[in-house]
Amino acid sequence: MMKFTLLAQDKGSKARCGVLETAHGEVHTPIFMPVGTVGSVKAVHVRELREDIGAEIILGNTYHLYLRPGTGVLEAAGGLHRFNGWGKPILTDSGGFQVFSLTDTGRKITEEGVTFRSHIDGSRHLFTPEGVMDVQRSIGADIVMAFDECPPGTSDYRYAKASLELTMRWLERCVARFDGTEPLYGYEQELFPIVQGCVYRDLRERSAEHAAKLERGGYAIGGLAVGEPAEEMYAMIEVVNRILPEDKPRYLMGVGTPENILEAIERGVDMFDCVMPTRNGRNGMLFTTEGTINIKNQKWERDFSPIDPMALAYVDVDYSKAYLRHLIKADEILGLQICSVHNLAFYLWLVREARRHIAEGDFVGWKAKLLPRITRRL
Amino acid sequence: MMKFTLLAQDKGSKARCGVLETAHGEVHTPIFMPVGTVGSVKAVHVRELREDIGAEIILGNTYHLYLRPGTGVLEAAGGLHRFNGWGKPILTDSGGFQVFSLTDTGRKITEEGVTFRSHIDGSRHLFTPEGVMDVQRSIGADIVMAFDECPPGTSDYRYAKASLELTMRWLERCVARFDGTEPLYGYEQELFPIVQGCVYRDLRERSAEHAAKLERGGYAIGGLAVGEPAEEMYAMIEVVNRILPEDKPRYLMGVGTPENILEAIERGVDMFDCVMPTRNGRNGMLFTTEGTINIKNQKWERDFSPIDPMALAYVDVDYSKAYLRHLIKADEILGLQICSVHNLAFYLWLVREARRHIAEGDFVGWKAKLLPRITRRL
Repeated sequence: MMKFTLLAQDKGSKARCGVLETAHGEVHTPIFMPVGTVGSVKAVHVRELREDIGAEIILGNTYHLYLRPGTGVLEAAGGLHRFNGWGKPILTDSGGFQVFSLTDTGRKITEEGVTFRSHIDGSRHLFTPEGVMDVQRSIGADIVMAFDECPPGTSDYRYAKASLELTMRWLERCVARFDGTEPLYGYEQELFPIVQGCVYRDLRERSAEHAAKLERGGYAIGGLAVGEPAEEMYAMIEVVNRILPEDKPRYLMGVGTPENILEAIERGVDMFDCVMPTRNGRNGMLFTTEGTINIKNQKWERDFSPIDPMALAYVDVDYSKAYLRHLIKADEILGLQICSVHNLAFYLWLVREARRHIAEGDFVGWKAKLLPRITRRL
Repeated sequence: MMKFTLLAQDKGSKARCGVLETAHGEVHTPIFMPVGTVGSVKAVHVRELREDIGAEIILGNTYHLYLRPGTGVLEAAGGLHRFNGWGKPILTDSGGFQVFSLTDTGRKITEEGVTFRSHIDGSRHLFTPEGVMDVQRSIGADIVMAFDECPPGTSDYRYAKASLELTMRWLERCVARFDGTEPLYGYEQELFPIVQGCVYRDLRERSAEHAAKLERGGYAIGGLAVGEPAEEMYAMIEVVNRILPEDKPRYLMGVGTPENILEAIERGVDMFDCVMPTRNGRNGMLFTTEGTINIKNQKWERDFSPIDPMALAYVDVDYSKAYLRHLIKADEILGLQICSVHNLAFYLWLVREARRHIAEGDFVGWKAKLLPRITRRL
């Protein structure tokens, strides 16, 4: 089993630092994982991820990689680490979320799995718990996720309960398949169960207890940040983290804003991924140590100051706000690149700082001082 | 006047090496200038231009920069070098070519200048030789180009002659305005006349003689590679270069393929720019030391070899052909970035090699051996 060592515990909260040892290197938690949907973090070179942003682990999507380039190419390449040139740790989402969010026509859920149409060419496919484990063996991610049903955030209790029960049965099939197969490339992979249950406390507890009993190397919390108030999300995290084992990493899927991340760290979460830094960046929205910026606004037209005075990445030194505004207004690809590199550097800076303040025992005070600054709109 | 020193002359041809000293650094010729239309070389960071591609000078477009961000922003920034973070030498095209190629409705040419509609918002503008000099003072390029009429490549003699005569009158007005104004940012700029005359030998001679008499720091050859056979282009270059002074740099505008560039170098041309490496790159067409590649082709699907075995840039080491094909097929921005960096690295490698072989005196033999290799389709 993948080794996870807790290095420090914050004095005033449940926040903790740790190190996760994977076959492709160490991951220091709390960590943010840039999203590389089809294998590539959009508009960002692997050299930038490694040397400039300080990324330690990236995320790939099973759904996208299965459709394109397909498992044949990935196996011929020797797995995703070798295919995309990243080489460091990778986690793959199981495709559950994509099947439910990207394919809207002709999707059918049965006990066996989900049939869906490709968003690329409309072709029909079946994802089963077993099949998704096999695809993730082909991708070769260090951490693979269980295949789950992702019910809408607005699901009523009845639907949420039935959905969770299906997800739990699928989880057992995932575990059976995963444990019954060998990795393809000679290094260890780890399967994380996903805790579901919408915003229903008893369902979340039941799901977390079921997952914990399976004694895996780490656990994910899914189905949050899908429209519910942030306070409900935080409450669910508290419910789940009281049950999940202390000595294993906890991954909050698809979350979120810098504030969401700090609040979740305070409640004992260790790993995060979100498209927000890259997707919002491509729309000209920047996270900075002074506050958030919509770079399209007229007010930046003649502001020749650095994108971030803290110079979190080389792009903050090489380019000014005014130039970046010009690039985004002129639809230049370079503008998307700069925003993506900067925002990811910000997210990685945020979790590095969080680790430092947890180790120093003043996480809560630091968070209280930082949040008003970084969340204001400039 | 900008200092140009000839360093070597090829033994078997008119090819020569030199160094041009600008206020922002030296340019070693023959040189290829990446095109940064609106100030940015599309999909390429300035750090990559400087450190990875070996670019020494880039090109900006007066037409585009005048429309966006506009001279007010450029002047507030202290010129384009400071605005775009590049800092090294810049040449600006005068906008003549763009006015005639990008604005098709409502364009009107008079003795005074050209009225045209912006391709961005349809607003009306007037470019005169004097106005274009002023805009290039605001941009602050090291080398600025005269404002010329760019007649269609298919122009008959009568049109070409009238057009050239207008261009010559405009050139004199450009010189008068340029010499009658001061640079805005405290460093010297240099105005290059543009030789026109379509494919008519006597017009080219007349234009070159007129330009040469103006005794400027360098000269450009425009209006070629606009549809005429390559042999006619090479013949026109020979005609013009017999007249232009030996001791000044000669810039062949908007050219071209690697073959075009080597043939023009052999005929005494020193400077080149072209969108081909970046534009074709964004379409998945790669120039390599082994031949040209359409990366979209099925044959590269499982080819995990480097993009170029010569490893001309870090992207050739970090990524494989198969991965690049996947990125381009999946419309990933990173694919455009990789192709752009690679192709520009190839063009800069080509002119560096040309310089080396001119210095060694075996340019023609090297060219004859290289061309069949790099022009074949893989």
